[in-house]
Formats: sequence, C-alpha cells, structure tokens
Amino acid sequence: MQIALLGGTGDIGEGLALRIARDTDHEVRIGSRKAEKAESAAEEYRAELDERGVDATVTGHENPAAAAPADIAIAAVPAYYLSDTVEAVADELDDSVLVSPAVGMQRDEDGLHYNPPGLGSVTALAVKAAPDDVPVVGAFHNLAAAKLADLDADLDWDVPVVADDDEAKATVVDLTGELDTLRALDAGPLANASEVESLTPLLINLAANNDGMHDLGVKFW
Amino acid sequence: MQIALLGGTGDIGEGLALRIARDTDHEVRIGSRKAEKAESAAEEYRAELDERGVDATVTGHENPAAAAPADIAIAAVPAYYLSDTVEAVADELDDSVLVSPAVGMQRDEDGLHYNPPGLGSVTALAVKAAPDDVPVVGAFHNLAAAKLADLDADLDWDVPVVADDDEAKATVVDLTGELDTLRALDAGPLANASEVESLTPLLINLAANNDGMHDLGVKFW
Repeated sequence: MQIALLGGTGDIGEGLALRIARDTDHEVRIGSRKAEKAESAAEEYRAELDERGVDATVTGHENPAAAAPADIAIAAVPAYYLSDTVEAVADELDDSVLVSPAVGMQRDEDGLHYNPPGLGSVTALAVKAAPDDVPVVGAFHNLAAAKLADLDADLDWDVPVVADDDEAKATVVDLTGELDTLRALDAGPLANASEVESLTPLLINLAANNDGMHDLGVKFW
Repeated sequence: MQIALLGGTGDIGEGLALRIARDTDHEVRIGSRKAEKAESAAEEYRAELDERGVDATVTGHENPAAAAPADIAIAAVPAYYLSDTVEAVADELDDSVLVSPAVGMQRDEDGLHYNPPGLGSVTALAVKAAPDDVPVVGAFHNLAAAKLADLDADLDWDVPVVADDDEAKATVVDLTGELDTLRALDAGPLANASEVESLTPLLINLAANNDGMHDLGVKFW
C-alpha cells in the first residue's frame, strides 16, 4: 500500500513514518503544506532508516500530491489544522481511507484537559471535513510522539481504533498490527471517539505528576 | 486504619472490601442503607476470607455508623446515588478522607459514553455533597468490579488518583499501594477527574468490541 502522512514532518507524523517504513513494505509519502519541507523530512527519515540498514521508500510532497495515490492518508496534524488539512486534500481522497489521530486539549494550572469541538470529538471534525464517500478511521490518538519516533524504543502500547466503515477499520487495524510493539484494539464506531481522545490528556497528566514517568502509552488487559 | 465502604454490598465495594481485608491490617466497615444488608454482606466476605485462611475484621453497619470512626470512607455507590449517600453520612465525616470512585455513563446503540454532571465530573459532585472541611479524593474509578472481587485474579492495574489535598491523596495512594497487584498513580488535582472517569467507558467499549477481552483495566508506561 501507499501511506500518506499529511503533516508528516513533525509530531506523531515522524514516528509513524519511520515505523511504517521500518516495519512494513508499504511506501511512505510525507506530506506538508510546502513540498521542500516534506522532501527535507523524507530525506532525514531515509537517512535514519539507512543507518539502521532499512531500505524503504519514503518520499516528500505537498499534502495533495502525497494523498493522491495513497490507500491510507493519515492527517498527522494538530486538531487546530485538521479541517483545513483535510479540505486541502479532499479532491485526492477517492479510494483512500482517512485516518484522524488528532486530539483537542487545553492547558490550565491544573493540567491538560480534553477540549473537544462542538461536534463531540476531533475525529468527528475529520468526518465533517472529508467528502461523504471517504471512510474515516480514528486511530493513533494516544501515542507519545517522542517515544514513537525513537526507533530504539519498545512501545508495547495499545491503539484503540474507531470507525463506522468495517472495511476501512480493518485496513487500519491491519496496518497497526504490522508495526512492532503496537497492538490495535477495536473501540467501536466513530461515536466512541471522544472516550479514546480524552485518554491523551490523562496520559500527559500522569507523566507530569509521577516521577520517572514520561512519554506514557497504555496497555489494556 | 478503619476503612468504610459506603454501599459496600455490591459493585466495586465487594472487591475493595475483600482486597483491603486480605492485603492489609486495616479494619473494613461495610455500609449500606440497611444495617441487615451490610451485616449479611460482611458475613459473606468474612466467610470467603476465612476459606482462604485470612483472619480479618469486616463488620456491617448502616452507612452513617460505618463512616463514623472511619479514617477513609469510600463512596462505592453508582453516580446516581452519590450525593444522597454522601449527604447521609456528612455529619460523620470529620477526620475522614472521602473517596469517590463513581463514574457517570450513558449507553446508546454505539456503546457506553462518558456522561459527566454539569459540575464537570462525578468526583466534583462528591466535593459538592461533602462538608467543606472533608478532603475528597477521586480514585478506583477504572476497576472492573467482577475481576476486582475475584481474589484469584492478578489485576496488575493502575489506579489514577486525583485530589487537591496532598495529605489525603497520600493516604489513598498508600492504601492502594498496600493492595496486591494495584499501583496508584498521581493524576493531579481534582480538576483532572473527568479525564480519569472517562477512561471507564473506553474500557467497557474495548471489552465489548474485542474477542477474548473482558473486565479490562489499564496499565500506563
């Protein structure tokens, strides 16, 4: 498959790009608003993978060009940019599954709080911004970016996945299952996205309040 | 210490009572709206502990009598009954730490959803119902009742704890740490309770959607 990482130059885009390239045979297409930025990130990722003896196809493009041939397009951008990013690639998403990992959060003196949009979840924002016939899957909401991007780190984390389209959900569950030390779990339909998203500020609050804990993920059992 | 389990005849009250009695030297006071019900539950718990060779002090009382001498009073009742339960024992809570494990949830065709009261969290409801000078700690929100009450089950679960009063928080963290296979984590002040509570419907949705998973808890790393 071809996997586009829209906004794949930072945050969890980097970690997903590196791990998909290392752990699978899929082609990774880094997207950015500026082609040069995406090309530069792709070059950096190729160099890191090359150092590890991994021969992978990682290329950089403007977001719409990254999305055009993609089987899966992951909108790896902050919640604030999600709608704009999806709308900018909307014409290129036919035959793609759109994946939304963004979480809306707000910080105050107590910690980080879940701050969903009026639609109920950020994943629901992606559904609204995408064309009606593009299946949307919520996944990768709870991954700590720095640890994800550290290819020496064993994650042993679970990834709750929500979607209304069973085939699209299975595609993302299978991709996640190909990634070393990540396990996909079915969290039900898109309407269950807010409970998945709100886990992220909890992870950050726990890391902030407990000595020796940082870059937390979660395992369910 | 003396630990009261208000509403300790069902749900997570049973599991907490059994595990506190088995794993610590604290006295367990089961509370209920009716003394006979609490006495009957206490007798049942003593019999189960006795079978396992555990000699523990577990007694049954009306909720106010259970709370009166307690160092820690755990309101192990559904969210719907929380305010009434706390108000009924309010005069007995001086020198007690009040612990709130309840979560507000609502089921629809998609699954279970977090449904906090207008105050923002169920833990905040407990604060409102308690006298001003009684410190409230949110804890034990995410424990699956059936597995908790199965003394043969190794839980290996984490327990996020929220409170504004550091001493009260430490008391509950220490109690949790005495329980085999549970680990307490500091999730910050009371204002962070909603992110802790909303983990519970996620756990239930994951159990409902994944074969072989049930009675889920969580481990953070």
